[in-house]
Amino acid sequence: MKKLKRSARLVEMTQYLLSRPHTLISLTAFAERYQSAKSSISEDLAIIKEVFEDEGVGELHTLAGAAGGVRFVPKVRKDIALGKIVDICRELEQPDRLLPGGYLYMTDLLGVPGMMQEVGRMFASAFANRNIDVIMTVETKGIPLAHATAHYLNLPVVIVRRDHKVTEGSAVSINYVSGSTKRIQTMSLARRALKEESRVLIIDDFMKAGGTIQGMVDLLHEFRALVAGVGVFVESGEIESDERLLHDYVSLARLTEVDLKSRHITVQPGNFFHNQ
Amino acid sequence: MKKLKRSARLVEMTQYLLSRPHTLISLTAFAERYQSAKSSISEDLAIIKEVFEDEGVGELHTLAGAAGGVRFVPKVRKDIALGKIVDICRELEQPDRLLPGGYLYMTDLLGVPGMMQEVGRMFASAFANRNIDVIMTVETKGIPLAHATAHYLNLPVVIVRRDHKVTEGSAVSINYVSGSTKRIQTMSLARRALKEESRVLIIDDFMKAGGTIQGMVDLLHEFRALVAGVGVFVESGEIESDERLLHDYVSLARLTEVDLKSRHITVQPGNFFHNQ
Repeated sequence: MKKLKRSARLVEMTQYLLSRPHTLISLTAFAERYQSAKSSISEDLAIIKEVFEDEGVGELHTLAGAAGGVRFVPKVRKDIALGKIVDICRELEQPDRLLPGGYLYMTDLLGVPGMMQEVGRMFASAFANRNIDVIMTVETKGIPLAHATAHYLNLPVVIVRRDHKVTEGSAVSINYVSGSTKRIQTMSLARRALKEESRVLIIDDFMKAGGTIQGMVDLLHEFRALVAGVGVFVESGEIESDERLLHDYVSLARLTEVDLKSRHITVQPGNFFHNQ
Repeated sequence: MKKLKRSARLVEMTQYLLSRPHTLISLTAFAERYQSAKSSISEDLAIIKEVFEDEGVGELHTLAGAAGGVRFVPKVRKDIALGKIVDICRELEQPDRLLPGGYLYMTDLLGVPGMMQEVGRMFASAFANRNIDVIMTVETKGIPLAHATAHYLNLPVVIVRRDHKVTEGSAVSINYVSGSTKRIQTMSLARRALKEESRVLIIDDFMKAGGTIQGMVDLLHEFRALVAGVGVFVESGEIESDERLLHDYVSLARLTEVDLKSRHITVQPGNFFHNQ
């Protein structure tokens, strides 16, 4: 590209880094891209780093040495994230969200890209230091969450299907018992979707007893893959602890009370916000 | 926020604009945010505008007057987009993608966030000047494409389900005939998902005769909503023009030949790249 003035270079470097999260970019590559001395590039990066950290956009990790460079690690500031989650909790508490059977309508929120970005950044922040190869979710409502998280962690997504589709090729299917409805269901994943020994982050929109997520864990065993983490957008607190199939997970919000008669719903920030 | 030097302000404004596509931001809001004169803000925006346009990131549209401000409109440069689509076409032509029945495995590509970003930017570029309220897709494989496009157009997504779920509340269901398999199928959309007279952009991953998309168009009629555009990632050229149910759409790639015996697949850039 043409040689830029420092002001233009800062704009270009900012957009370049933001669109490449969790990607190591060498100082040499930057110096060549902008036809500038590495010392100038380092000064620019120091400015960007300070702004990103002050504004809670994320961190710039600098690696020294010949193989060195810089990596943009998206993060959220917990105070800003908490404010956004409190807004989401208030939105989820609207009485008209209550559906027959005590289910909560939240599909509309999962369709708002700005909100998915925020939630994706929170999960990316929670799991930034784990060693993860791939993100897994089960169709349908977990998909926007998984993809938003995948963007900020720069990882591929695999989607578990509720039935086996002809467009997926050969697949591994398992049966599982949905913890809340106690019904036996099937989920399947294409053989070619996952390499053996992959380290997998499971993301889903809602968890009650955890039967669906336990199903994904069982499916991972079939692929000799490993669970690197579990993130759920909303967990239901309306369950006894000993009924819960899963105990190690990150939740962003927690549905603590649903009163079908008064249509009173209470949603609080999840365990992501505990023990700070 | 604290008062920033120009260099830091450029970094902050760049990240602020990039995370708010298709959103009008007033000069007054910027001037207050950065405690700077509007004349300085205007100079900064001129620098950002030039870099964004030179690098094919998008356009900054400036509106003059009291209600004026600036809007970031993500765009792709056609030459850069074409290069990326040619890479995707070569990838799709790999013989091991061919599945029984002549289907093409492309689920893996739809799971790569960097690729979804690129494709989302192309659709956002193609439909930037249309008057659209909401993006619609049908589960499952269209969802990452719809959400990537929604991010760059700053629009919500509604997802049509293959079956009616208890977590969606009351829904409108229709039957449709899949054009390629000639089988009767069902799709449904939650009553509360779509307002009357919404202008809807339909996005999907694959189109042969167009039966599934025609089903979505029929569903829109039930909601008294309007089709504002149709975008498909890959269209099949293996169909006679008079068998096609739909003629006004944007495609990014076109599957022109599948030879089951020799496993030879040909994929070419779609109509988005015609008539430049």
